[in-house]
Parts: sequence; structure tokens; C-alpha cells
Amino acid sequence: MNAKQIAAERAVDYVKDGMIVGLGTGSTAYFAIQKIGSLVKQGMKIKAIASSQASDDLARQLGIPLLEPGNEQQIDVSIDGADEVDTNGNLIKGGGGALLREKILATNSKKFFVVVDESKLVTKLGKFKLPVEIIKFGSVLTLAKLEALGGKPVVRQKDGKDFNTDNGNLIADCSFYPIEDPKALHEQLKQLTGVVETGIFPTEVVTAVIAAYASGETKQFDY
Amino acid sequence: MNAKQIAAERAVDYVKDGMIVGLGTGSTAYFAIQKIGSLVKQGMKIKAIASSQASDDLARQLGIPLLEPGNEQQIDVSIDGADEVDTNGNLIKGGGGALLREKILATNSKKFFVVVDESKLVTKLGKFKLPVEIIKFGSVLTLAKLEALGGKPVVRQKDGKDFNTDNGNLIADCSFYPIEDPKALHEQLKQLTGVVETGIFPTEVVTAVIAAYASGETKQFDY
Repeated sequence: MNAKQIAAERAVDYVKDGMIVGLGTGSTAYFAIQKIGSLVKQGMKIKAIASSQASDDLARQLGIPLLEPGNEQQIDVSIDGADEVDTNGNLIKGGGGALLREKILATNSKKFFVVVDESKLVTKLGKFKLPVEIIKFGSVLTLAKLEALGGKPVVRQKDGKDFNTDNGNLIADCSFYPIEDPKALHEQLKQLTGVVETGIFPTEVVTAVIAAYASGETKQFDY
Repeated sequence: MNAKQIAAERAVDYVKDGMIVGLGTGSTAYFAIQKIGSLVKQGMKIKAIASSQASDDLARQLGIPLLEPGNEQQIDVSIDGADEVDTNGNLIKGGGGALLREKILATNSKKFFVVVDESKLVTKLGKFKLPVEIIKFGSVLTLAKLEALGGKPVVRQKDGKDFNTDNGNLIADCSFYPIEDPKALHEQLKQLTGVVETGIFPTEVVTAVIAAYASGETKQFDY
């Protein structure tokens, strides 16, 4: 078992019978969902909500009961990965483009566990480009505002076309490194008309980061 | 000519040759677009951008040149209506459901003129339900946050189904009357994950309100 899997399963220890569970997206969340699936097979009763179609599909294959859209409830525990984690437990997420749904889960969870390998641990956020989800209408004008703030926004491309999020929006990948005050930057960007959400998850929404090291060790940082 | 039309045409006096013009939506904006169309016929050279399909269609019929999507530019003058205007020039807009596009125009305009009849002038905002545009995914959770802030949100319906905005989102109509500090309430709501935009247009984005009275008089309030 690799360190990433060990770390993911350690996070799953916080999932208990009767809980509503938020399922993240990506390679570490994959291990967590697999483990949750095996606990469900052993008789644990939970209900889940997924942050992406891929995780929703995986959960269904594994027999994990899912809340239907429109019947979402306050989540007890969410487990997800991150693209960067700073020393204070602030995150950048959204490399996969699912930042908005991931953030809706995270901000509606009593406990939010982040599982990463050590390559994601940084002193300051921002070497990983900050994804900002923006409305298509007038996007040129919204990009100009991000540019004016020094963000050097680039509209994310896929297969030679603008990438579309699950919500039909665009992603502007921005360069703000080094991000000295992640929460302040997030609030400033979120306030812009045309901006739907940013990939900064301030440490307040993070319960703990569980990091996996190449040595096989895992470490939990509580925030 | 009724007072509404007189007021709308007074706003159009600010439109000059060579300008980029933002076209609002609704019964007063209709008169403004008609007047702009006649100026274009007389040889005025402008380019326009519309906040709704209806206004886009009307502009095309009248031969007003429109900027193509993706080629938006900083707007010189926008003219639009409002659902409520308070004594400080703060607005509630979005009764028609186009608040996001209207706000993208307003916040990207050098000058933004609001044309209303006197019935829209209020001491404090909020008797008109405040429209808040929210993401569908997890909307139950976002509605719970609006409820916790005292907003008594109701998802807008149309033809027995949830109303969808041009951006594929929902509108939560909220009761916050009396709104003592419109800008603060807007910022608080905009900051919520799942909220895309609110119908509060703070007075900072408003250049002037031109009000039409039943007596046939019009008055301009500069902010």
C-alpha cells in the first residue's frame, strides 16, 4: 500500500455509521472512496454526495448510497485532495476544474479532511496557478479586472477550445505567487462581478491535512 | 410622450458618437433602445452590448451594431431600469432575472444611468424581494445559508418549474427589508460559496437616476 493510500484511509477513519459523507475528486480521493465502498459492503450505513461525475460514478459502482440532487444535507465529513497546501493549512484546488462543487461540499461540511502527497506542501501558495471560475458573458471584461489585479489570467483550454466547467463557466488560471494572504485575495476576487468562485480554500474550512511522504510515513496537521 | 419615455430619452442625451453603449432590459430600457436606434439611423456611430436576448433582438431590428460575444469592450454609457432605488442611489435589480448580465454591464461602464418611474423610489430597499443568483448544485445548502442570514429565500418559479437564468442558475428571492446597508449586505451574500451575484447595485456604480413622475416631470439625481 503506498503512502497516498495509507493517508486516504487514515482520513476515512473519521467516517462513522449514519454520517453524510462528501466525496472529493482525484487520485487521493479515489483511495478514500474505495475504502468507504468496502466499509459500506461490511454494513456501514452512510449517505454520500460527490463533487464530480467521476466520483459519483465510482461511488455508484461500489454501492455507496448517494443523496439525490435537490436533497443535499449538511455534510458530516468530506475528504478531498488539493493542488497546494501552505504551512497554515490554506489550499489551492481546482486543477481538475471542479473547484466550485468541491468548495460547496467543503464549506457545508462539519469536518473537512485534505489528503495530499508531500509534493503538494508549500511555504506560500501560488506557484500552482490559481483557478478562478468566471461567467462566460463579458468574460473579456472580467479577465481585464483579474489582469488589473496582477493575476495574468489565462483562459483554460481543452482539446483546442475553452474548457467548460460542470456549471457551464470558464476557468481563468491566474498567477498571484507568492500569495501572502490567501483569504484576503480570495475575498477580493470573489467580490468581482463575473467571478463565481476561486480555488483558494482558506484554512478556516480545513479540519486537518493528512500528508503522505515518499518514505511511507503519513503526518496529520490539525487546523 | 409619457414621462417614462421622456426620462429614457433624457438618459440617451449622454450617448455620443463613437461610444460603446450598454443596453438594459425592460420597459424603460425599451424606450432608450428605440431612441438610440433612431440616432443610429440619423448617422450616429456607436456599438452596443445588450444585457438580455430581448434587448439584443430589439437592437438588431433597429439596426444598432452589436459587439460580438468575446469582443466586449469597456462601456462608455449604460442605460437600464431598476426595481427599487433608495434615497442614496442604491438599487435592487433582477426582477426580470437578468441581474448578472445587467451587473456585468453596469460594473464595466464609465457611466451608468438608471431610468425609473416614481413608483420605484423608496426610502429603504427590500420591499421588492432581493434576487440572489445561486448555483444549482447544492442549492439546498446555499438556501440554508441565506435562511440563516434571515433572508427567507424562495426559489423563483416559472411555468411550474424552477426558473433558470441565462447562465443556467437559480434565483432565490429573499426578504431582507429594511436593508440598512445595501453594500454590506451585498458583500456578505456575494461572499457565500454557491452565490454568483446579488441584485443589489451599490450607489458607487450609479452615475445618476432619472426619475419620471406621473405629472410628466422628470428629475435627475446625481450620485
